Amino acid sequence: MNGAQHRVWRLGADVDTDALAPGHAMKHGMDVIARHCLESVRPDFAAQVRAGDLVVAGPNFGIGSSREQAAAVLVTLGVAAVVAPSYSGLYFRNAFNVGLLLLTCAQAEQLQEGEAVRLDLHDPRQPLLRRADGRLLPCEPVPDFLMQRVRCGGLLNELKQRFASSTHD
Amino acid sequence: MNGAQHRVWRLGADVDTDALAPGHAMKHGMDVIARHCLESVRPDFAAQVRAGDLVVAGPNFGIGSSREQAAAVLVTLGVAAVVAPSYSGLYFRNAFNVGLLLLTCAQAEQLQEGEAVRLDLHDPRQPLLRRADGRLLPCEPVPDFLMQRVRCGGLLNELKQRFASSTHD
Repeated sequence: MNGAQHRVWRLGADVDTDALAPGHAMKHGMDVIARHCLESVRPDFAAQVRAGDLVVAGPNFGIGSSREQAAAVLVTLGVAAVVAPSYSGLYFRNAFNVGLLLLTCAQAEQLQEGEAVRLDLHDPRQPLLRRADGRLLPCEPVPDFLMQRVRCGGLLNELKQRFASSTHD
Repeated sequence: MNGAQHRVWRLGADVDTDALAPGHAMKHGMDVIARHCLESVRPDFAAQVRAGDLVVAGPNFGIGSSREQAAAVLVTLGVAAVVAPSYSGLYFRNAFNVGLLLLTCAQAEQLQEGEAVRLDLHDPRQPLLRRADGRLLPCEPVPDFLMQRVRCGGLLNELKQRFASSTHD
């Protein structure tokens, strides 16, 4: 036992921002976008995903447009982290700015749909995914300032908190 | 749709700290305590609970001893919040200090085992639980400084973050 269990939603490679935040929903607010998240690749996702679940995917997660909603929607739905071998650079920036943890894991595709895994973030220089049989999947380090941004719920919240604490000094 | 779905674990009244952190496990670390959490009232809990789940209980949650582990263990297991009509005062203090959100909800006991509910914390003066059929259960306000403590992951982390940000100024 090592911390909380997270349920895996397993997607393929090249999940793009239009799958995450469909163009037809973009004129609406986040509640509507969330209802359509991933409908083209996993029609059951938006209705069934629960707080704390993990999205696990193949390479090039988040390719496509720069729309920040494609990352924010997973925060809205309570996704604890995305795990993939690689990300679009724009998506990587957007994700941490809105408080979504991305873990880069070369072996991500070993994880199975519905599997329960534990996330060991005690050492941010060596994040680990722990499978039920005890096997460990190492992830690439996450810099302290990005972990902090996730813990604060994104860049805007981080700045608000920093401002609030400095006015208390 | 309004934010993430959380699965309900439904417990009865007067859940005590010995049920949460059994005495026989207290000489061990949190990993062992977590394995025994609630074994006397819900033997399936420790193995099945997942990150983001909610513990929903009757009145007087957390009565018994002052052991902080009885609150920290639910954080370790990834529980998103406890929802109950009332809490032991000691437990209430310990919980927020270790980053566990407690929601005081007079109608908590309407919620059913396994139900999926949404947690609406947009207005901390009026936290809401939203059931699948749209019914709302209002909770008592959570003061800003306690919400902030939960967001930071507890008092120690809050102080570390405040110290880190003030040295950046």
